[in-house]
Amino acid sequence: MITKIKGGVCAPQGFQSAAASCGIKEKGADRLDLALICSDVPTVGAAVFTKNKVKAAPVQLSSKSIKKTAPRAIVANSGNANACTGEVGMEHAKAMQQAAATALSLGKDEVQVCSTGIIGLPMPIERILPGIEEAATRMKTTDAAVAKAIMTSDTKPKSHAVEYQDSAGITVRVGAIAKGAGMINPNMATMLCFVTTDYAASEAYINEATQTAVNQSFNCISVDGDMSTNDTVIVMANGLAGNRKDSGKTLFQEALNEVMLVLAKKMVSDGERVTKLVEVKVAGAASQADAEIVARAVGNSKLVKCSWNGEDPNWGRIIHAIGYAGAKIKEDKIDIGFSGLPACVGGLTADTPLAKLASVVKKKTFSVDIDLNVGSESFTLYTADLSPEYVDFNREEYALTRRKL
Amino acid sequence: MITKIKGGVCAPQGFQSAAASCGIKEKGADRLDLALICSDVPTVGAAVFTKNKVKAAPVQLSSKSIKKTAPRAIVANSGNANACTGEVGMEHAKAMQQAAATALSLGKDEVQVCSTGIIGLPMPIERILPGIEEAATRMKTTDAAVAKAIMTSDTKPKSHAVEYQDSAGITVRVGAIAKGAGMINPNMATMLCFVTTDYAASEAYINEATQTAVNQSFNCISVDGDMSTNDTVIVMANGLAGNRKDSGKTLFQEALNEVMLVLAKKMVSDGERVTKLVEVKVAGAASQADAEIVARAVGNSKLVKCSWNGEDPNWGRIIHAIGYAGAKIKEDKIDIGFSGLPACVGGLTADTPLAKLASVVKKKTFSVDIDLNVGSESFTLYTADLSPEYVDFNREEYALTRRKL
Repeated sequence: MITKIKGGVCAPQGFQSAAASCGIKEKGADRLDLALICSDVPTVGAAVFTKNKVKAAPVQLSSKSIKKTAPRAIVANSGNANACTGEVGMEHAKAMQQAAATALSLGKDEVQVCSTGIIGLPMPIERILPGIEEAATRMKTTDAAVAKAIMTSDTKPKSHAVEYQDSAGITVRVGAIAKGAGMINPNMATMLCFVTTDYAASEAYINEATQTAVNQSFNCISVDGDMSTNDTVIVMANGLAGNRKDSGKTLFQEALNEVMLVLAKKMVSDGERVTKLVEVKVAGAASQADAEIVARAVGNSKLVKCSWNGEDPNWGRIIHAIGYAGAKIKEDKIDIGFSGLPACVGGLTADTPLAKLASVVKKKTFSVDIDLNVGSESFTLYTADLSPEYVDFNREEYALTRRKL
Repeated sequence: MITKIKGGVCAPQGFQSAAASCGIKEKGADRLDLALICSDVPTVGAAVFTKNKVKAAPVQLSSKSIKKTAPRAIVANSGNANACTGEVGMEHAKAMQQAAATALSLGKDEVQVCSTGIIGLPMPIERILPGIEEAATRMKTTDAAVAKAIMTSDTKPKSHAVEYQDSAGITVRVGAIAKGAGMINPNMATMLCFVTTDYAASEAYINEATQTAVNQSFNCISVDGDMSTNDTVIVMANGLAGNRKDSGKTLFQEALNEVMLVLAKKMVSDGERVTKLVEVKVAGAASQADAEIVARAVGNSKLVKCSWNGEDPNWGRIIHAIGYAGAKIKEDKIDIGFSGLPACVGGLTADTPLAKLASVVKKKTFSVDIDLNVGSESFTLYTADLSPEYVDFNREEYALTRRKL
């Protein structure tokens, strides 16, 4: 049985962390903006990076390092994405990696570097390097500060940890911290998620398990349909639980899946100025790909998202998005419901009273149930509404940031 | 030389129109919601319909009729899309077609039927049919009322007309009315555009000229990335100018292009709660398709659109959208500018002062100039910002409408 436990990346045995304020977000401000995470012992690990063709310097660097050796530490900053910063940006990412490696007595490629924040502005590297050095002297087995240090527009720090006993009676723990908020989308969006576990795994298996867990969590969420230049999921497994390597895969996968899915849903709920968490459940599709493109067309439609914000059970906008998604459909076979209540049956309005439908979409969480009735494939997308406050929040960033630096 | 003249669909010789209030938008309200347009003499014509797989009943009906015979009249209503209304919806569309044909003494297939408004609610057909009959008794050579009658959330009626003298000294006129506002997108969105001309054309040529004009106008605009179930462009040519059939194609095409492009831009500027008209000009793409997907990724990104609303020259969000568009790119070759001022050169921040960039995006109209520098293909998308007011405006529709009926 998998049980939720306290903490995040330091919940499993043998992981330590520390955070610092380097004034990256705003000169002189004392907000936490630097995080260090490290395993006491060697690890195996895996990482999944953004598929955006414009990749931040740290993404380029970390993806090379992990090909050479297992990730044993992570240095991450918020406030600046170090993206579109050219050769200087790459030098800065390398300097961060080297500073963390030196301070933690590791090889440089054992350090994964992550950045999140504004695109296109140079990093205040002269403030970051001393911060790394100083943080490394304060490493502890608590993780509340690092969960805060990676936040950008998140309103809450996000962490989740679980444990289970395997069939040999060994306790295995999986813990993680994450950040999300804006630009959350398919195929990884400005989201960072750092997962630690004391499970003993082979490198091949930890890669496979990570990809499986990412596919059923972060690749099934969308806030605004944008995809970031910096998204990264890193999993580090240090084996201190003492299980036989790769034993009890089913339970471990379940634990890893749960940790990532819980954090993925937290990202959506805490999306910028989001008021609703909506599960778009598509069933009866002719193919898996069709189920997914329908879910994404509905979940990313501005008009549909506006109607959710307005608590309006507007199935007409949903069917219009289904219509342009590009999937195989038959209009007169489409059923649409809200949390199990039929709104549209066979392409026509259902006889559920408006007041009943309205009461469902008034809730903070509801599902949109779409059955295309042309096959047997399905896909669920976790998404959110679009609020006037989201737009207002995202109006000015670049000029504002440049003026503060 | 092509000159702007007054009026819309009645500017060319031999066209008449009339509008009526049938209480479709709201029972008992006296807003114009029905339009009739008719040519005095036989015509040739062409139509382009939505590519959404969910097609409104009038779209299904009109696309069949135009295959049988040339369109000589149009009956259009606003307030109800007659979409997702099943067999009853098709009966209603047919009843509208028959009522207009009878009242105007035409064959039923000579009448194109168009509807725009809310999806999924039945048409108040008992109020519409008498409205058609009555309007037909008042046909005149003025068109201000029909331009108003097809409006939904448009704030202004949209019409445009031009004339030119061909090489034989013959005056040819092209006029049109249109409606747009929400759901404006590639491949035709809830937009209607009715074009009339007294040019004498063959059926084959009018089809070709229409497709050419649509491709460089309505297929290059996007407000919110949604695509409607009802979009229709209809062109009727009655030959009364007296030119030799299909003569002076270059000038005619230019006139038709201009009328459609002017109306397309008006649709974007008058998009729901839009404050900016932005031209996303992509050049240097490896293929035409690449140029278009980059323009659409940028023009449909919620985060990019928010930054335009905030008058923020945020090129970082633009390059991040370029990165996930799926086109062939090289990050260090990308140039981005605002109305000719460089903001990003070779993937890095340019040295244009922030104040200069900010002054450009403060204007009501500006261009985003993207050069991918990997080829020679280009595409321009006419699009708009995303405002908090847009979201607010689109929050509630379905429940509100159902309560009013």
